[in-house]
Amino acid sequence: MNVIEEIKARSVHVDKGIEELLPITHPEELYKASRYLPDAGGKRLRPAVLIFAAEAVNGNMESVIPAAVAVELVHNFTLIHDDIMDKDDVRRGMPALHVKWSPEGAILAGDTLYSKAFEILAGMDTKADILIKCVSLLSKTCTEICEGQWLDIDFEGRNNVSEDEYLEMIMKKTSVLYGASGKMGALLGGASDEVADALYDFGCLTGISFQIYDDILDLITPEDVLGKVRGSDLMEGKKTLIAIHAFKHDVKLDVFGKGSATHEQIDEALSILTNSGSIDYAKDLAASYLEQGKSKLDILEDSQAKDTLLAIADYMLSRKY
Amino acid sequence: MNVIEEIKARSVHVDKGIEELLPITHPEELYKASRYLPDAGGKRLRPAVLIFAAEAVNGNMESVIPAAVAVELVHNFTLIHDDIMDKDDVRRGMPALHVKWSPEGAILAGDTLYSKAFEILAGMDTKADILIKCVSLLSKTCTEICEGQWLDIDFEGRNNVSEDEYLEMIMKKTSVLYGASGKMGALLGGASDEVADALYDFGCLTGISFQIYDDILDLITPEDVLGKVRGSDLMEGKKTLIAIHAFKHDVKLDVFGKGSATHEQIDEALSILTNSGSIDYAKDLAASYLEQGKSKLDILEDSQAKDTLLAIADYMLSRKY
Repeated sequence: MNVIEEIKARSVHVDKGIEELLPITHPEELYKASRYLPDAGGKRLRPAVLIFAAEAVNGNMESVIPAAVAVELVHNFTLIHDDIMDKDDVRRGMPALHVKWSPEGAILAGDTLYSKAFEILAGMDTKADILIKCVSLLSKTCTEICEGQWLDIDFEGRNNVSEDEYLEMIMKKTSVLYGASGKMGALLGGASDEVADALYDFGCLTGISFQIYDDILDLITPEDVLGKVRGSDLMEGKKTLIAIHAFKHDVKLDVFGKGSATHEQIDEALSILTNSGSIDYAKDLAASYLEQGKSKLDILEDSQAKDTLLAIADYMLSRKY
Repeated sequence: MNVIEEIKARSVHVDKGIEELLPITHPEELYKASRYLPDAGGKRLRPAVLIFAAEAVNGNMESVIPAAVAVELVHNFTLIHDDIMDKDDVRRGMPALHVKWSPEGAILAGDTLYSKAFEILAGMDTKADILIKCVSLLSKTCTEICEGQWLDIDFEGRNNVSEDEYLEMIMKKTSVLYGASGKMGALLGGASDEVADALYDFGCLTGISFQIYDDILDLITPEDVLGKVRGSDLMEGKKTLIAIHAFKHDVKLDVFGKGSATHEQIDEALSILTNSGSIDYAKDLAASYLEQGKSKLDILEDSQAKDTLLAIADYMLSRKY
């Protein structure tokens, strides 16, 4: 199976769903701003998890597209507001929304995606009791994403962050939306609460491993593959799992939080972090979360969709950027 | 009947609902920021409309409190984000959230109130089909509020705004949340769709009249009563209904958009706008929307709650600030 092809075959429907469910209407400029990021692509991983979860419990792909669009819009809303907060001016190789439209425009475009996600979800032609479960889950997830982003900003101003605190932050900021995608797909596909909860755990646990692995890639990937400066997390003083492990073991990192560093200095830091076991520690933890996540799918009968979910998990931890 | 006392008797329950349904929990500073504005008071008019609408169709007050909290949180979320966008640094006599917590904190606190509103609404112990109607309505309303705020910002940069455009803007930015409050109260109180739609129209139409009247008060109210500089809309060049009427009739207003003006200049402008009939025009239109709104309640049987809704409408157009 080619997992990329499997995802692409579904994301075509998600793209069509975005066009239909978030049309560019009056006031046009607001909707153009709202569609800017969703139209710029992205891997559509959350919709993919939702759709394959539905298929894995014998649900119908077409019928869950609005929910897949909803989770993608929530994801895009968080990117837009995060970029304003983090003052990140480039997203998906383009000027961020607050650069292209002003911070005011970006706040409003984000808010619009937020409400549209719930409008689209609540407007689905599905049993009301299942829909309410999905609305409850997605709104709770959005609250947790806000908590995660708050913690992330808070950590920037602190000297010490524990491993547990870091894991709570990435769980809320990143993983829960994967969990919600898995569970919503299962619920809408007709699964029992037990199976739906297993899909939630699958999404959360693999989501944590993706995020830990992202931090590793930032450090070990060649720049021409990474598409940005290698070691940027280190230079920015970001408290990733690697840095937390290193500091716990009194490893000295001169480049940490220095704002800039030469390639040689980053190579030296990489060598220090390799010798201290910090990179292996992060790799092992990512692998462990991945395995825990995959094992949650044991509850499912064998199917092509189940295999694809497992392959997505493996793919995320074998990617090079 | 003392309408203020009637509203207060309900807002006690709304305040308690906010405390229970939006507890200050981890991360505490995020929740303190989220509670800052709801705890600072406000008239709780939207919750009042929702609760009296429920009571007017023989619904139970206690059971609709979570929905009343939800509309109040949505209202507060819009205030927080609007204040960032409009660079308004004072709200309810206190520093605005983005001043007290930074723009980042204010964006996140607003986003948290947004998701909490849906979490609280979807978590209600009510029939799922009614809840889904409420979620659909509230999310659609939030989208319209974004559209209204976008139009409001857009109008600032334009020379000409028509009366229809202005009415669309205040309808979306202000009125629809009153409409949604009325309709949600009716639906949750057990009303038919026909009655619920009448309550929606009541909220929207009276909401328009409130907003038009707000613009009048900004000009005619003595400053010690108004609590801010009189004529600020004129000095800021805000395209209110009064200004739109005046410009349509080629009335010359030297202070318009000048940023500042003496009391004498504002008095002179007031006199010009009185003579041109612009203020009476706005007053008449506000009164007309109010009467249209009140007539929508003819569908209801007589009750104390119906009388209170009518009294709220009258009160809003007899207030002095």
